Amino acid sequence: MPIPVILDCDPGHDDAFNILLAAAHPGVELLGITTVAGNQTVEKTTRNARRVCTAAGIRGVPIAAGMAEPLRGRGITAPDIHGASGLDGPAFGAPAVPLDGRDAVTFLHDTLRAHPAPVTLVPTGPLTNIAAFLLAHPDLAASRVGRIVLMGGSTGRGNRTPAAEFNILADPEAADVVFRSGLHITMIGLNVSHRALATPEVVARVRDLGTPLAHVCAELLTWFAGTYREVYGFRAPPLHDPLTVAHLVAPDLVTLVHAAVAVELTGTHTRGATVVDLDGVTGARPNAYVGVDVDVDAYWDLIVDAVRTLGPPAAARFSR
Amino acid sequence: MPIPVILDCDPGHDDAFNILLAAAHPGVELLGITTVAGNQTVEKTTRNARRVCTAAGIRGVPIAAGMAEPLRGRGITAPDIHGASGLDGPAFGAPAVPLDGRDAVTFLHDTLRAHPAPVTLVPTGPLTNIAAFLLAHPDLAASRVGRIVLMGGSTGRGNRTPAAEFNILADPEAADVVFRSGLHITMIGLNVSHRALATPEVVARVRDLGTPLAHVCAELLTWFAGTYREVYGFRAPPLHDPLTVAHLVAPDLVTLVHAAVAVELTGTHTRGATVVDLDGVTGARPNAYVGVDVDVDAYWDLIVDAVRTLGPPAAARFSR
Amino acid sequence: MPIPVILDCDPGHDDAFNILLAAAHPGVELLGITTVAGNQTVEKTTRNARRVCTAAGIRGVPIAAGMAEPLRGRGITAPDIHGASGLDGPAFGAPAVPLDGRDAVTFLHDTLRAHPAPVTLVPTGPLTNIAAFLLAHPDLAASRVGRIVLMGGSTGRGNRTPAAEFNILADPEAADVVFRSGLHITMIGLNVSHRALATPEVVARVRDLGTPLAHVCAELLTWFAGTYREVYGFRAPPLHDPLTVAHLVAPDLVTLVHAAVAVELTGTHTRGATVVDLDGVTGARPNAYVGVDVDVDAYWDLIVDAVRTLGPPAAARFSR
Amino acid sequence: MPIPVILDCDPGHDDAFNILLAAAHPGVELLGITTVAGNQTVEKTTRNARRVCTAAGIRGVPIAAGMAEPLRGRGITAPDIHGASGLDGPAFGAPAVPLDGRDAVTFLHDTLRAHPAPVTLVPTGPLTNIAAFLLAHPDLAASRVGRIVLMGGSTGRGNRTPAAEFNILADPEAADVVFRSGLHITMIGLNVSHRALATPEVVARVRDLGTPLAHVCAELLTWFAGTYREVYGFRAPPLHDPLTVAHLVAPDLVTLVHAAVAVELTGTHTRGATVVDLDGVTGARPNAYVGVDVDVDAYWDLIVDAVRTLGPPAAARFSR
Repeated sequence: MPIPVILDCDPGHDDAFNILLAAAHPGVELLGITTVAGNQTVEKTTRNARRVCTAAGIRGVPIAAGMAEPLRGRGITAPDIHGASGLDGPAFGAPAVPLDGRDAVTFLHDTLRAHPAPVTLVPTGPLTNIAAFLLAHPDLAASRVGRIVLMGGSTGRGNRTPAAEFNILADPEAADVVFRSGLHITMIGLNVSHRALATPEVVARVRDLGTPLAHVCAELLTWFAGTYREVYGFRAPPLHDPLTVAHLVAPDLVTLVHAAVAVELTGTHTRGATVVDLDGVTGARPNAYVGVDVDVDAYWDLIVDAVRTLGPPAAARFSR
Repeated sequence: MPIPVILDCDPGHDDAFNILLAAAHPGVELLGITTVAGNQTVEKTTRNARRVCTAAGIRGVPIAAGMAEPLRGRGITAPDIHGASGLDGPAFGAPAVPLDGRDAVTFLHDTLRAHPAPVTLVPTGPLTNIAAFLLAHPDLAASRVGRIVLMGGSTGRGNRTPAAEFNILADPEAADVVFRSGLHITMIGLNVSHRALATPEVVARVRDLGTPLAHVCAELLTWFAGTYREVYGFRAPPLHDPLTVAHLVAPDLVTLVHAAVAVELTGTHTRGATVVDLDGVTGARPNAYVGVDVDVDAYWDLIVDAVRTLGPPAAARFSR
Repeated sequence: MPIPVILDCDPGHDDAFNILLAAAHPGVELLGITTVAGNQTVEKTTRNARRVCTAAGIRGVPIAAGMAEPLRGRGITAPDIHGASGLDGPAFGAPAVPLDGRDAVTFLHDTLRAHPAPVTLVPTGPLTNIAAFLLAHPDLAASRVGRIVLMGGSTGRGNRTPAAEFNILADPEAADVVFRSGLHITMIGLNVSHRALATPEVVARVRDLGTPLAHVCAELLTWFAGTYREVYGFRAPPLHDPLTVAHLVAPDLVTLVHAAVAVELTGTHTRGATVVDLDGVTGARPNAYVGVDVDVDAYWDLIVDAVRTLGPPAAARFSR
Repeated sequence: MPIPVILDCDPGHDDAFNILLAAAHPGVELLGITTVAGNQTVEKTTRNARRVCTAAGIRGVPIAAGMAEPLRGRGITAPDIHGASGLDGPAFGAPAVPLDGRDAVTFLHDTLRAHPAPVTLVPTGPLTNIAAFLLAHPDLAASRVGRIVLMGGSTGRGNRTPAAEFNILADPEAADVVFRSGLHITMIGLNVSHRALATPEVVARVRDLGTPLAHVCAELLTWFAGTYREVYGFRAPPLHDPLTVAHLVAPDLVTLVHAAVAVELTGTHTRGATVVDLDGVTGARPNAYVGVDVDVDAYWDLIVDAVRTLGPPAAARFSR
C-alpha cells in the first residue's frame, strides 16, 4: 500500500532528486506537487518542477503554484547555490507538463478532502504553503493530514546564518505554525544532510547509468558541487531534500529522536533557528521526530535506483 | 447601488447592532456573516450571530463559522464585558437560521470568486479569519477585496492593556497581516468609539420604538452599560462596532486621516498596540485611513433607524 | 531644611530653566550637576551647563561630565528642537565656571557617600548616568538615594515617535534600570508638560524683569517657541524639565497617581514607550508616582521668581 | 614580565582551579579577585574564593565582592552542578583571608587607575561586574583594560538551554556589553571546554601529588565528575574556567579564530546564545578571538604543575 504524498518544494537541485525518488519509488503514491518561493522565485521553482517532471517522463501528477512571499516580510532566494534559474547546470527544454489552475492552498484543500486516506505532506522548501493551509483550514488539516516529513532546520549551526538553516529562515513564521500544529512532524535538518555528501563516486554511479536522465542528474550534481565548494568550502555537496522521501520509504534509514523543537522568531541574531531540546533541559513537550543520523550508503542506493527506474531517455521527453 | 459586504464578527453586544445596521440599511448588500472567537468562543459567537439574525428577522444571509484560536498563541475572551454567553442581557430562544457548512476561509474564497464586484470586508472582532484568508489566497484577495473597514486599535491608550485594544490584542499577528496587506484599509478605533457612548437618552430612544426587537436592543445596551461602568468606570457604554457600517453608508460621519499604522508584535508591554503615525515622524508610508472623530448625533440616528426599519416583533420570529 | 539635589541634565532650553530654578529656590540645596548626551552631544550639553551657570551667576556648584552614549546602541540628539549648540538663541560668552575632573558616576558615588542625608536625583535627560550609577553601586544607591524625580515618558502618545518620548527613547535600557530599581520614583512626562506652554504672556513676564539674565531667558524661550511651532505645530513651547524641581519645592503643583510603569525595550514600533497602567489592568505593582496634571499658573510663578531671584546682570558675569 | 590580571569569578569547582593556576604561575601577577553571583549566590561564591585562597596558601591578593544579581532580571545558579555551597566535595574550614571593603566596580576602578600598565581581566562567571564597570567608567576602561579573556558561550549548542551556555545566559545583557565594548576580547566556550575532560587519569595525577591541597583538588574533581555524569551524562567533567589563564600563559594552547560574536538578547528560545560567525556569512566585523580547539595534554600539565607549585599542606593553612 503506497503512501499518499504531496511534495511541497522549491526546486532546486536537491528538490529535483526528491521528485524523482517520489515518482520512481513504488512505496509512494504521488498525489501532486505544490511549489513555493525559496531557492528561487515561485515562477522559477514552478517552472523547474515542470522541467523536472518533463525530463523524467513524469506525467499525470498535478503541479500547483504556491506562495511568492513568506507569511511575513520579504523572502530570500539562493542563486549563489542554485543559480539564476534555480536549477542551473543541465540544458532543459520547454516544460511539457501543464500547470494546475488552482493555488497551492486550494489544491491542498481539495486533494485532502477528496483522498480516502490521510495524506503525507513532504515540504522541502520554505513552509509557507503548508502553514497557510494549516491556518486557513485547521479542522481539515487536523483530520486529513497524515504526517509532515520536512527538510529544514538543524540541531546545531545553520547555513544561511550562523544559527539558521535556509528553509526555516526563509519563512520562520510558517515553520513556527507547522511545529506548533500538533500534527505528526518529522524534521530532517542540516545535522543529518551534511553527512549525505554527493561525492564524485556517487556522481559517477549516477552518470554511469548511461541514460539521458542520468546525464541530466549528473550535471545537476556537478553544478551543485561547484557552488557548495565555493560558498561553504564543502568537498562535496549535501543532497538535503531526498532524505525526506527516503525516510518515508525506508524508515530505518534516518535515526530519529523525539524532541521539543521551537522556532526562534524574535531573536535578533538567531531568527529562524530551530532550537532542539536534545537533552530535555527546557521542560517542553516533544513535538517532532528529529533526524540525528543517516545510513549514507543506503541513501545513495535509493537515489541511484530512482534514476535507473525512471530510465528512458530524457531528451526525447522534453523536446517538443 | 448597495455596497456588497461580508461582516466578520464576534457578537458581542456592539457586533449585534452592526448586524442590524448592515441588514437594515438600503446602502448595504449583506452577502454573509463569518464568525470568529473574540468576545467569546467561536461556538458562542456563532450561536450569537444566529440569535441576532433570528431575533431581527434576518433571513437568507449565510453564516459561516471561523477560527477558534488566533493565528498564533492562545486567544482571549471578554466575559467581563459581554457575559458568559457573549451576548448577555435579553432572553434569546433557539436560533432559527441555519449555519453554512463551509469554514470561514472557504466561504470568503467562494463568495469573492462568485460575486461580480469587489466585496467590502467589515471585521469587528479579532482579524483571524481575514488574515487567514489573505495568507491563503493572496492573489484572489488582491483582485476581489474592495475595502476593509474594521473596528479595532486606537491612536492612543488601549483598553485590555494600557497599550492595546481588545480586538487587536486578541490576534496581533492577524492584524499585522491585514495592515501590511496593501489593501484599502479603514481603521476605526477606541479613540473614536469612546466618543460614541450609548447614554440613557439613546437607550430610551431605542426602547421607545416599542417593538420586541427594540426591547431586546434596549436590554443589550442596558447590560452593556453595566459592565462598562463596573470594569472601566464609564458613564455609558461605547458602541464600537457599528461605526464601521455607519461609516460605509455615511462616509462623512467619521473623520479620517491617512496615516501609517503598524501593529506591535514583539513588545513586552505593548504587544497588540496600533502605532499610528499622526505626526508623520516615522517616515513610514500611510497604509490606512484612521478615524479621529465622529458625528455622534448622526450615528445614533442611524442606529435607531436600523432598529425601527427591522421593526416587526422579534418575539414572534425566534419562538418556535 | 532644603532638599539636597543633584541635577542630571542635557541642556537644552528647558534644562537651563531647571538649573536656574534649582539654584534660585531656597528649598533646594544644589549639590552638583552631571551632564549627559541627549539634546546634544555630551561635550555640548556640558558646555551648556557651564554657560548657564556662568550667565546666571551660579558659582560653586560642581559640574561633572557624564555619558557620551546610551547604555546600548547609538544615541540620538535633537538639533531640530534645541539647535546646533543645544542651547541656540542667546549669545553666550565663554563659560567661567570650571569642570569637575571626575566622571559622572564617580561624582555621584563620592557625593552620595559624603553627604549626611539621602540625596534626591533629578534627571531631565536620558537616564544613562543614573542607570550606570545604579548598576555599578547598587548597595550605595539603595541606602543613599532619597528619591528620583525625572522628566520623561508619557501616559499617552510620544513625541520622537508615536509611542516614545525623547529622553526615554534616547536610552530605553537606562530608563528600564531606573524604573525597576525599587527606588522612590516620580515621573513627569509629556502628558503633563504639554500643558505647561510658555505662551507669549509668559515670555513677556520674563522679559519684563529687565535684567540681562531675563533677556537671555526670554531669548531662550523665543527660540524654543520657534522650533516647537515648526516641528510639532505647537502654539507655544512646553517647558518640560523645570516641572521636576517645581514639584520638589511645591509638591501640590503636579497631581500624581501611583501606578505601574514599564519601559518597552523590545517593541519594534514602541521601543522607549513608558507603559503606564492607570486603570490597573495589568496586575503589576505600582512602582512610580506619575504626573497627570499641573497647576500651570503656579508653575510660571516659580519660573519667573527664579529668574528674578538670580537677578543681577548676566552680561557682567560671563564677560572676561 | 608577568601579566597583571584580575580574576572575576563565581567559584565554582573550575573557577577554583583557575585561582590556583593564576596564583601559581610565574607568568601571572594576580592583582585581585572579584566575585559575582553565578554558580551560587555572591555570598557563597565570595566565601568560596576566600576558602580557595585559604586552602592554597594564597595571601595578599585582595578579594572584593561584586554583584548579587544580573544587570537585568533575576539570576540563576547551578546547585545541580556545584552543590549547595557552590564548592561541594572537600571539607573547608573557615576562610582565613580577609574581604576587601570595596564593591567590585570600585575595586576595578581603583586598581586600574593605580596600576602602571593595562590590566587583563579574566572573567569566568556571569559578566555582571565587568559590564557594570565598563558602563560606569567607559573612558577608564578604554585606556586601562589590556584584554578580556573570558570563559563563556559556545560556537554550537549550549548547556543550560539548547542554545545558551550558563555564564552568558546568567547575564546576557552584561555579555552583550562586553562583546560590544570594542576591547580586545578572547572567548573560550563550551566547544573548547567540552574537550578538556578531567578523566580519572587526570584526577589520579592530581591526587598522586600527595599534598593536602592535592587531596582537596582531587575531591573537587571527583565531586564535579559526579554531577556532570548525572546531569549531562558526561564520562568526565569539563574543566572550563582554567582554560582562560592557561591560554594567557601558554598562548598556543588554545587555537583561536577572529570572528564576529553577537549575544542574543531578544530570542524567545535562544536568549543568551553566543552567535559566532565562523563562516563570515553575516557581514559583521570580527570583535573577538574565539577558541576552537585546545591542546588537552598541555592543559593538564599546567593544572597539575599549579597544584604542585602551591604544594605545602593545605590543611595547616585553613585550620584556625
